[in-house]
Amino acid sequence: MGKVITLGEIMLRFSTNQGTRLPQSDKLNVHYGGGEANVAISLANYGHTVSFASKVPNNSLGEAVKKHLKRYGVGTETLLFGGNRLGTYYVESGIGQRAASVVYDRAHSSFSEMTFNEWSEEILFSEADIFHISGITPALSHQWRTLTLELMKAAKRKCCKISFDINYRGKLWTQKEAGSVLKMLLPYVDYCSAGYMDAIHLLEIAPRPEEELSYYYKKMQAHYPNIQVFYSTKRTVTSASDNELTGTLWMNETYYESKPQLICPVVDRVGGGDAFCGGVLHGLLTKENPQDIIEFATAASALKHTVEGDCNQFSEEEVNSFLAAGSGKIIR
Amino acid sequence: MGKVITLGEIMLRFSTNQGTRLPQSDKLNVHYGGGEANVAISLANYGHTVSFASKVPNNSLGEAVKKHLKRYGVGTETLLFGGNRLGTYYVESGIGQRAASVVYDRAHSSFSEMTFNEWSEEILFSEADIFHISGITPALSHQWRTLTLELMKAAKRKCCKISFDINYRGKLWTQKEAGSVLKMLLPYVDYCSAGYMDAIHLLEIAPRPEEELSYYYKKMQAHYPNIQVFYSTKRTVTSASDNELTGTLWMNETYYESKPQLICPVVDRVGGGDAFCGGVLHGLLTKENPQDIIEFATAASALKHTVEGDCNQFSEEEVNSFLAAGSGKIIR
Amino acid sequence: MGKVITLGEIMLRFSTNQGTRLPQSDKLNVHYGGGEANVAISLANYGHTVSFASKVPNNSLGEAVKKHLKRYGVGTETLLFGGNRLGTYYVESGIGQRAASVVYDRAHSSFSEMTFNEWSEEILFSEADIFHISGITPALSHQWRTLTLELMKAAKRKCCKISFDINYRGKLWTQKEAGSVLKMLLPYVDYCSAGYMDAIHLLEIAPRPEEELSYYYKKMQAHYPNIQVFYSTKRTVTSASDNELTGTLWMNETYYESKPQLICPVVDRVGGGDAFCGGVLHGLLTKENPQDIIEFATAASALKHTVEGDCNQFSEEEVNSFLAAGSGKIIR
Amino acid sequence: MGKVITLGEIMLRFSTNQGTRLPQSDKLNVHYGGGEANVAISLANYGHTVSFASKVPNNSLGEAVKKHLKRYGVGTETLLFGGNRLGTYYVESGIGQRAASVVYDRAHSSFSEMTFNEWSEEILFSEADIFHISGITPALSHQWRTLTLELMKAAKRKCCKISFDINYRGKLWTQKEAGSVLKMLLPYVDYCSAGYMDAIHLLEIAPRPEEELSYYYKKMQAHYPNIQVFYSTKRTVTSASDNELTGTLWMNETYYESKPQLICPVVDRVGGGDAFCGGVLHGLLTKENPQDIIEFATAASALKHTVEGDCNQFSEEEVNSFLAAGSGKIIR
Amino acid sequence: MGKVITLGEIMLRFSTNQGTRLPQSDKLNVHYGGGEANVAISLANYGHTVSFASKVPNNSLGEAVKKHLKRYGVGTETLLFGGNRLGTYYVESGIGQRAASVVYDRAHSSFSEMTFNEWSEEILFSEADIFHISGITPALSHQWRTLTLELMKAAKRKCCKISFDINYRGKLWTQKEAGSVLKMLLPYVDYCSAGYMDAIHLLEIAPRPEEELSYYYKKMQAHYPNIQVFYSTKRTVTSASDNELTGTLWMNETYYESKPQLICPVVDRVGGGDAFCGGVLHGLLTKENPQDIIEFATAASALKHTVEGDCNQFSEEEVNSFLAAGSGKIIR
Amino acid sequence: MGKVITLGEIMLRFSTNQGTRLPQSDKLNVHYGGGEANVAISLANYGHTVSFASKVPNNSLGEAVKKHLKRYGVGTETLLFGGNRLGTYYVESGIGQRAASVVYDRAHSSFSEMTFNEWSEEILFSEADIFHISGITPALSHQWRTLTLELMKAAKRKCCKISFDINYRGKLWTQKEAGSVLKMLLPYVDYCSAGYMDAIHLLEIAPRPEEELSYYYKKMQAHYPNIQVFYSTKRTVTSASDNELTGTLWMNETYYESKPQLICPVVDRVGGGDAFCGGVLHGLLTKENPQDIIEFATAASALKHTVEGDCNQFSEEEVNSFLAAGSGKIIR
Repeated sequence: MGKVITLGEIMLRFSTNQGTRLPQSDKLNVHYGGGEANVAISLANYGHTVSFASKVPNNSLGEAVKKHLKRYGVGTETLLFGGNRLGTYYVESGIGQRAASVVYDRAHSSFSEMTFNEWSEEILFSEADIFHISGITPALSHQWRTLTLELMKAAKRKCCKISFDINYRGKLWTQKEAGSVLKMLLPYVDYCSAGYMDAIHLLEIAPRPEEELSYYYKKMQAHYPNIQVFYSTKRTVTSASDNELTGTLWMNETYYESKPQLICPVVDRVGGGDAFCGGVLHGLLTKENPQDIIEFATAASALKHTVEGDCNQFSEEEVNSFLAAGSGKIIR
Repeated sequence: MGKVITLGEIMLRFSTNQGTRLPQSDKLNVHYGGGEANVAISLANYGHTVSFASKVPNNSLGEAVKKHLKRYGVGTETLLFGGNRLGTYYVESGIGQRAASVVYDRAHSSFSEMTFNEWSEEILFSEADIFHISGITPALSHQWRTLTLELMKAAKRKCCKISFDINYRGKLWTQKEAGSVLKMLLPYVDYCSAGYMDAIHLLEIAPRPEEELSYYYKKMQAHYPNIQVFYSTKRTVTSASDNELTGTLWMNETYYESKPQLICPVVDRVGGGDAFCGGVLHGLLTKENPQDIIEFATAASALKHTVEGDCNQFSEEEVNSFLAAGSGKIIR
Repeated sequence: MGKVITLGEIMLRFSTNQGTRLPQSDKLNVHYGGGEANVAISLANYGHTVSFASKVPNNSLGEAVKKHLKRYGVGTETLLFGGNRLGTYYVESGIGQRAASVVYDRAHSSFSEMTFNEWSEEILFSEADIFHISGITPALSHQWRTLTLELMKAAKRKCCKISFDINYRGKLWTQKEAGSVLKMLLPYVDYCSAGYMDAIHLLEIAPRPEEELSYYYKKMQAHYPNIQVFYSTKRTVTSASDNELTGTLWMNETYYESKPQLICPVVDRVGGGDAFCGGVLHGLLTKENPQDIIEFATAASALKHTVEGDCNQFSEEEVNSFLAAGSGKIIR
Repeated sequence: MGKVITLGEIMLRFSTNQGTRLPQSDKLNVHYGGGEANVAISLANYGHTVSFASKVPNNSLGEAVKKHLKRYGVGTETLLFGGNRLGTYYVESGIGQRAASVVYDRAHSSFSEMTFNEWSEEILFSEADIFHISGITPALSHQWRTLTLELMKAAKRKCCKISFDINYRGKLWTQKEAGSVLKMLLPYVDYCSAGYMDAIHLLEIAPRPEEELSYYYKKMQAHYPNIQVFYSTKRTVTSASDNELTGTLWMNETYYESKPQLICPVVDRVGGGDAFCGGVLHGLLTKENPQDIIEFATAASALKHTVEGDCNQFSEEEVNSFLAAGSGKIIR
Repeated sequence: MGKVITLGEIMLRFSTNQGTRLPQSDKLNVHYGGGEANVAISLANYGHTVSFASKVPNNSLGEAVKKHLKRYGVGTETLLFGGNRLGTYYVESGIGQRAASVVYDRAHSSFSEMTFNEWSEEILFSEADIFHISGITPALSHQWRTLTLELMKAAKRKCCKISFDINYRGKLWTQKEAGSVLKMLLPYVDYCSAGYMDAIHLLEIAPRPEEELSYYYKKMQAHYPNIQVFYSTKRTVTSASDNELTGTLWMNETYYESKPQLICPVVDRVGGGDAFCGGVLHGLLTKENPQDIIEFATAASALKHTVEGDCNQFSEEEVNSFLAAGSGKIIR
Repeated sequence: MGKVITLGEIMLRFSTNQGTRLPQSDKLNVHYGGGEANVAISLANYGHTVSFASKVPNNSLGEAVKKHLKRYGVGTETLLFGGNRLGTYYVESGIGQRAASVVYDRAHSSFSEMTFNEWSEEILFSEADIFHISGITPALSHQWRTLTLELMKAAKRKCCKISFDINYRGKLWTQKEAGSVLKMLLPYVDYCSAGYMDAIHLLEIAPRPEEELSYYYKKMQAHYPNIQVFYSTKRTVTSASDNELTGTLWMNETYYESKPQLICPVVDRVGGGDAFCGGVLHGLLTKENPQDIIEFATAASALKHTVEGDCNQFSEEEVNSFLAAGSGKIIR
């Protein structure tokens, strides 16, 4: 088992019941989550030692975030308290033909308004195997672009592997802005979650019609030979309730693909990608066979889609059981 | 944007949660709706000026009806208060293989027991573009047969277009009774929602094996050349949770058909037809292209099936987004 | 209409909402059920006179069991009060790709710790047509193996038909133990629910590749010519939410199979087999045509899957309506 | 233990959660009840053999009524199915300073529209000790005035004691109408629930300032010497949540009064009077000491106020425990 | 009936169930409210023509605000759409000894960031009788201090009465800041909600031990003779669930006080003061007798405390009934 | 801040909503708790380093227990997994005059069936300041009597203070059995929760009429001079919803009593005593003044009564705020 640090923003998510629109709702479901926190919980479920670094307000919402993380065994010694607010967002859950609809209210959060590194390097990266961070963080502010780079360098100095999820969000910055920041960050990255859209629009890989994902992985690796692993999912959306998911992995200069997982109905899609990412990192820490890694990660993501809330609720043993038994089957 | 009057009964609907039968339920969900009220709300959502004319008891249920309508911006200056009761009905929601099951308790309602026109013609039809009414109203009583005709004539005098939804209900009157009343009413109608079952059983069009809906539309128009537009939906029921819906329209002596909308799962089917009707009327008021009208109306109906409650909860912009993005897709 | 006695354990079932795991749940749904109690309720729904014999603790949980049975018209004059506890179990409801997961907590229950026949033969079997019992009961203890045999013999003396559902549970006893007890019990049985797994693993019928169920039924009848009827279901599990069910019946030395029932979504699978068994027994008591029996029983089971709770909530008329109308269709 | 027949209307009650008004409610709580049905359930809880005679529609609401009664062990062999509807009413639950508010919708119910005696005298009164009926029934229609008298006479012929709860409702008839019918009925009554308001306004007893209830009981008995027992409660309403209740009883020409029961908070007041009445009848059937009768009945009523729903949920043993332990105390 | 404009911020309130702390909650109740919006709804309930002026974001939360207001008949033609977010706050509902606890998250809201008058004077104040605004608005920003003064002057030009609720919030500005702004605004005010704390800390009235409220009202009026009416409530808090409320009014240079209203239990205290204010304004528009005004307003506030949500849910007739019947009593 | 080990059984509690009896409930609320676990959570809330030692089954219920403890920051490195079941109990919540009613189902639990010390002394008591245990544990089995003594001795060897809550349960053992075991255990105890009932019935202190608690504390200390601190609460039960609580403490040979805390309404009484005990231990670890200790502990207990669930949800700062502000008051 390894030691992992994840760092990023965690938010309060309000979501409607499926079948009810936001203005119809007189109750909203409360979840706490964010990509990096969700990855932390996945890895803690699998038995790794994990800490989550972030900043939340010093009020009962911050307290709720802390309890949420501790519940799943994620270390909160690097969770800072202070600043003005906890970012929130509202998800009108989709169902059938109707896609989910999201309203963000995340500006001015305690985390996004951080201006300098409030963590001690020693506490953050001491004996850590992996430092995981995403492209959302540098998208939050100019200070965070500087800070992200600084933190990556510090992690490198401590011999951490750097895991980076590009996670481009058009609502936070332009492709051009993102592209120029990525150029700065990617040379420090070891494991990278990136799809062909990232390749084309952010990393300026020339699109080629009918090309497979392996083409784009290869090209990206050519630009950043320091990145040993690329991964992402392919999702076919028949409806908001009916998706098919295939995991893909580029490792040892070879392309791997999981068997497709049919997900029907989708209970809660939020965090599905983070469960996949958590599965890949778990695989990199514990497994030898790339095919095993990608099957495990895709199964973990499929299971996440069957439960409410942002975070993976399954142990390594349960994911393996699911892989062995198959859809809807019980091993008695 | 137009001005529209809809008139009819509005009822209190009690429905079970899916997966629970009526005698198992110790809570029931409360909705207020009726075909004409639902059409009114659709049109108000799309930005038209709409009033709903009806009669409800002068108690807190009547008050609840009024608040329901106002919430969606429907004018209630023609909502009368008085009489004995609000009609109710109980829906045991269907799911999967099990169809919904309905118990009506609508007799003796304030609306059904109206015996003369309690509205001023001026208030009702002044500057109105469309007067929308359905075949349920004349089915309620002999007085309502007379009143319906009278109201249609008054609307015509004010140069309103008459929109009529045949909406035959075997529990309220026989096919023969309905047929003879329709003969009286249809000469005043401009837009008519009618299917091939109506054509055959109520309007005495000779059925022809393997004939398409266009045949029946054409025949009906031959009988009632005053009717410029016919429309209805074709629904394929795989199960209570899995339907396919295609909108059809006869306009400019041409038959139009929407692309089929797969609806899976069906959240709440009640009001699906009214959302379709509201979409057609919106199209007639604002669009030129018949194909656009029928696509819009069918999409509106499909979206309605994904939310609880009788009424369409979507704006014109949201219906258009859905048409553009496709099933379950998000336009970010 | 007949008179039927069913005897067995009834338990308290706690189940999660679909989409929520057990450790996430701060509320659990409460149901009372057990195979033989569920069969009793099915038969009471169809109009038969039914009593359920069991033992529950003399506290408010025992009281709740009694109220549950009485609610459906099942006689409770043979429901004993005493002993230490009501057996419970926890069902983490499955959905989509994720199978249900069950935690049993049934040891030391009032029923399982019974050591001698506390019922009077007169009260139990007087004028009864069928005595229904399952293989779970002798699996509970050595005393229950003796008691089961004793009760079967007593029922036989009173000219009851013996209905037996093998219902093998690997968590309660080994295949070898079960096999040796079944050898003792089956000579008294008239109607037997048994599948090909039972035939192979418990009754030592040699498996033959590609053989149909009819082969196994025939072989089992050869061993136990006293058994006039065999029945079981074939279930195809696409996912926890999407099953296909076919009923099979061996009667008059002929194999019958129902048309397949697609069940999607599955609302609650628990009790689906009991609803099937209740349908078969109802058919044996009232119908002549084996094909009608197996269609009715399979339809009853399919409907059960669409409601929450262990027990069939449908009358004979409703099952017949469903058979006539088909999936999701309403007979108006 | 005795055998008791109660006869009257049973209705579907919809009630809001406390703290929510009716037009705010998108869910309503469902209860089934009526004075005579509630008395029946109380007596069945105490171990008597009880049947409830009424008429409900032949639909799933009628089915729900039947299941409700059977659940508590009340015989339903005299529950008729037919007619048009189940009477309903809506209770906006009161809390604190805000009183409950009720909307009735009971006209045209299956029971109220009965026009002749559809029960066989044999089935109804055979071996019955008490026939319980209330003043609501003759208030429903002119036919019911005749029918009530007829049923009382028939019961008398079978040597039943007649228990009658005056239960005057100003929404159903005038004091004058009620008075003249009571004159007709009271000569057949043995046990009568009546308060001083009934004495003054319906039975024309001259009010005397500052007179105690015993004065009115004595006067009423002087008019109707056949009535052996009078009883009623005195309620002090500090708020909808804070009541004090004292039971009063006239028996053996002596006035008895229970110790006052403080009820705070009131969970559900509906059925509180019926629980009191059930307690008195139980006392008359099983107890010798009038003081014991009135203490038991008042305690039973106080307990009923602490649970949701119309019906008493307590056994004789539980009521006695409560009397022995006192408010809020646990006997361990 | 009058015409009233109220202007201010409206927020989304999340509140816990009583008995549950915020970090324990996985669902939160949703209400929309703000002092001026709540006053608007009260007045619309009483039959006045009311518009609410504010600014909300152009997303589904803004849409929900609009639907909330329309539901109660408040005009939304002056509700602007734009800006960045809807202010929110979290209420951990108090109960018994535990006081409520509030977390604000209102900075950067669409309304608070308005920088100039976006409304047309004509639309806002045309034919209006009263313009109601509170001290929260100028507390939001320096721009709003200017804007508030500007709006008051414009209203005055249109011959509106100015109603002002001081509503001092220490979290938004200091007493000194508030005092200097009030000096600027109060010369334009006609009706003013202010208590003795406001008099002492904001308006620099010298405190005098043991002085009654009438002393402070008199002094305040001496400073601002333009203010014709002062009012406020006195609240005795026994616990979060048990309050006593007395309304006070200074009018015609005389002090009036309502009878005290005991409120136990308190269902939801939020909006209690606004219901009082709405009652006073209604009184000023329709009643002659100051004692009637203050009794009505205090009763309206007491009733508000018995329902969930920010807004008064009672009509004038209901408030009068409550005054006539008294606590917990029903007028049948 | 100190380091504390608590050891005991933790159970799954099912509780009804207030106002609903157990057989009426189709949902039950789920809480995890036990005296020693609840004390652990209180102390962790106050900032101490706490571990809870127990044994739970290796299934999802055991997993839920672990997550519950971790959520509040209690160390679970001494939580063992194994054995057969998690003890459960059912609480029918009391309200008003109706007391709560409890059904235990705790026999055969993983913890109660432990037969030898499965913890390493090093892990348990290393550097611990206090070892807290209760009289329930030796009541569970003969093995546990031996084990309890053994653990106390081991803790003493490690220089832990021993905190012991007598917590006598008549359902688990007789007074005589308890008395003889206590004689064995108390010589090792430093802090002891014991009331006058314990003194009289278990420790054979001669009762003296009208004697105060200080008499009994003094006498008990005379028997066990090693015990430095005694404490308990006095509770006046007006009803299940209305209690008054006074904390008492014997320390430095002096009797201290808190001001009484009125608790109305009681939200959830379970764990109220544990919150008191947690408050006392916190005081012993951090405070000098005995009066401060007893005020803090009683306030902590009062607050616990206002929230659902077994465990104290308040920080030291919040308890102090409550003490400063008083009932229902907010410090703004």
